[in-house]
Amino acid sequence: MDHIGDVLGQLFILLLAAKIGDEIFKRIGQPPVVGEILAGVIVGPAVLGWYQINAETMLFAEIGVVLLLFQVGVETRLHDLVRVGPTALAVGALGVILPFAGGFGLAEILGSPLVVAVFLAAALTATSVGITSGVLRDLGALRTRSGRVILGAAVIDDVLAMLILAFASGLAAGSVSLDRIALLVVVAVVFIGIVLVGGTRILARRRSILTDPKFAETPFLPGVIIMLGLAALSSLIGLAAIIGAFLAGMVVGESSERHALESEVAPVAAFFTPFFFGFIGAQVDLAGLANVGTLALVGGVTLIAVATKFIGAFVGAIRLGRAEATLIGWGMVPRGEVGIVVAGLGLQIGAIDGQLYTVVVAMAILTTLIVPPLLPALVRHAERDSERMPGGGPTPGVEDDDDGRRADTSV
Amino acid sequence: MDHIGDVLGQLFILLLAAKIGDEIFKRIGQPPVVGEILAGVIVGPAVLGWYQINAETMLFAEIGVVLLLFQVGVETRLHDLVRVGPTALAVGALGVILPFAGGFGLAEILGSPLVVAVFLAAALTATSVGITSGVLRDLGALRTRSGRVILGAAVIDDVLAMLILAFASGLAAGSVSLDRIALLVVVAVVFIGIVLVGGTRILARRRSILTDPKFAETPFLPGVIIMLGLAALSSLIGLAAIIGAFLAGMVVGESSERHALESEVAPVAAFFTPFFFGFIGAQVDLAGLANVGTLALVGGVTLIAVATKFIGAFVGAIRLGRAEATLIGWGMVPRGEVGIVVAGLGLQIGAIDGQLYTVVVAMAILTTLIVPPLLPALVRHAERDSERMPGGGPTPGVEDDDDGRRADTSV
Repeated sequence: MDHIGDVLGQLFILLLAAKIGDEIFKRIGQPPVVGEILAGVIVGPAVLGWYQINAETMLFAEIGVVLLLFQVGVETRLHDLVRVGPTALAVGALGVILPFAGGFGLAEILGSPLVVAVFLAAALTATSVGITSGVLRDLGALRTRSGRVILGAAVIDDVLAMLILAFASGLAAGSVSLDRIALLVVVAVVFIGIVLVGGTRILARRRSILTDPKFAETPFLPGVIIMLGLAALSSLIGLAAIIGAFLAGMVVGESSERHALESEVAPVAAFFTPFFFGFIGAQVDLAGLANVGTLALVGGVTLIAVATKFIGAFVGAIRLGRAEATLIGWGMVPRGEVGIVVAGLGLQIGAIDGQLYTVVVAMAILTTLIVPPLLPALVRHAERDSERMPGGGPTPGVEDDDDGRRADTSV
Repeated sequence: MDHIGDVLGQLFILLLAAKIGDEIFKRIGQPPVVGEILAGVIVGPAVLGWYQINAETMLFAEIGVVLLLFQVGVETRLHDLVRVGPTALAVGALGVILPFAGGFGLAEILGSPLVVAVFLAAALTATSVGITSGVLRDLGALRTRSGRVILGAAVIDDVLAMLILAFASGLAAGSVSLDRIALLVVVAVVFIGIVLVGGTRILARRRSILTDPKFAETPFLPGVIIMLGLAALSSLIGLAAIIGAFLAGMVVGESSERHALESEVAPVAAFFTPFFFGFIGAQVDLAGLANVGTLALVGGVTLIAVATKFIGAFVGAIRLGRAEATLIGWGMVPRGEVGIVVAGLGLQIGAIDGQLYTVVVAMAILTTLIVPPLLPALVRHAERDSERMPGGGPTPGVEDDDDGRRADTSV
């Protein structure tokens, strides 16, 4: 009882601190996620030491990120991956390839081992769907053409980053044999393919599993059961648990009861994700950042992260004109949770050390911090520009799908 | 990662099994909670061994019961404790005193130590608010006079049982000194009083804490932060964590945003409570039940639990007439989660042994199983009876409060 009371006290401290950090950052116009991470730095071992890292707090953090990726999956439509078309694909692919190459090249220059290079490169690739879409929602720009391209590209680069992560995880597990890596990629792709295609088809045909009122009032409990099952299965075959959770979210999100599901997942995710972000912050080594060499590395990694992502996405979107390509490139810059997840995973399995972890977290925070202040001006500029150009802007007469999102394939 | 994957797998197994048990019991017209407990027995160490008891699964079970009692607290109105008046108080008090005396007397006859006697007696006292109100809701009888008396009495006996539990916990902690026990009771009462009176007054005066849209969109996150804080504080001063969670629920439930809060707490509680009930089941020692002596003890304890609760509540409600007193007495019989919580706590701190724990869990399951089949007939009988009697039945012209419950103080 004393131990449980102690754990409850630590969870209370972390949740309270994260919520306060969240509120402060909201009020100063910065992404709340950054406030939650900094709150974790403050109450964690680095500063106050009121929150410790142990089996229980780690489980809460893990459930937090599993639920976060499940929620992102639920909010991601499979057909959005297809509909946003070639532009989103180009933005997503170039926005992954360039940062990966940049991170890998930097690690090679620094003489790091292969596994470190792959983890650093993987941590630079993925745009944060959560942060980007949150900022765009605040600006009312989610339904513009640029907004849809950013969303689609962010989803595509998330999936690519997850494949890279699967690759990196296999590498870190000691399976440097190319045969095994290829096998892992095949297993991962087959797993993802079966889950997505098979899962959505089963749900489309026999909706009874999630929406039969005799089985469940809402698809929520079946959904989280599928989430836990696919997360565990994903972990079992060598992928990260969050990949299974994301796939589970996408599969369950195809259900006709998606809106009921979203409104039930929201409070559970709201309760748990602060434990993840706070935990992330609690792992930061402030003493490590006081080192000039580390600060230089933070500067270098952040510069590469911003430049490669911006250039890759800009080039991918250039056919939409300079103004929209600039908005899209800049909107893709925030890394947020996915980069931190990759780095945290690398730290957990010993693939990267505490210094590089701190550097990646600092990079994720910096890329997340610098983007929002410039976005409103870029959105206005892109809107003015698209009004002057033919085919730009929201296309009239396009059918809205049930989300109210425009089902526009013209980009 | 492998360890996290393993834990996720165990949580998946337990949640899936509990949900299946839940569905089966719903379909055969039995309380779903019993299905969840039996599912825990089956996947737990007693039968299949797919689910183990460890730090992480214990934390999930604890969070499950903390959330359950928080939810019960949110759904419990402070003014309901006052409004249902003398009848509910008599039913609640007699329905606690007789089972406590019965359990204590049985333990004395068996020659058990004082701490065992107090824990057994405490485990027999509390009617399950969740189970009783769930069954009454299904029957559409929550708003009848009998329904309101049962609800009010169940809340009163829950609070009394929690005081007894605080007393028993202090006793088990080795503080057999009467001074310390008295001090503990005073501390507990002062804590409960300050939280309830102070908390609800603060919320009534300055609603900003929970409902200021600048601080939070809904009172959910502030609510669960208060829940974790009071649960930890409660544990710190020697009460059970669930007492703090229940008080937090009652305090937060006074907020004007209660309905929004309830709809957000529901999915979180729905996700977590199966881990608690499944965990309860996983602790059952089936081999222990195969013993003739244990089976005899189960029979004796269950008989005492049913008879003392029924007689106490019947006598307390006799002024309403025999038919309603019979319904109220029978409706108070299910023990469910609170008895199991008390026994589980006693097992956890070593106050009672595995055999007695198994006996109490079996008693809780049996009292929960036998009640629902007879309730429909008793409800019909009480309704026919109250129609013939003056002052009985739903009183016309009584104001509905915001819950739609009748604010009737005539009982």
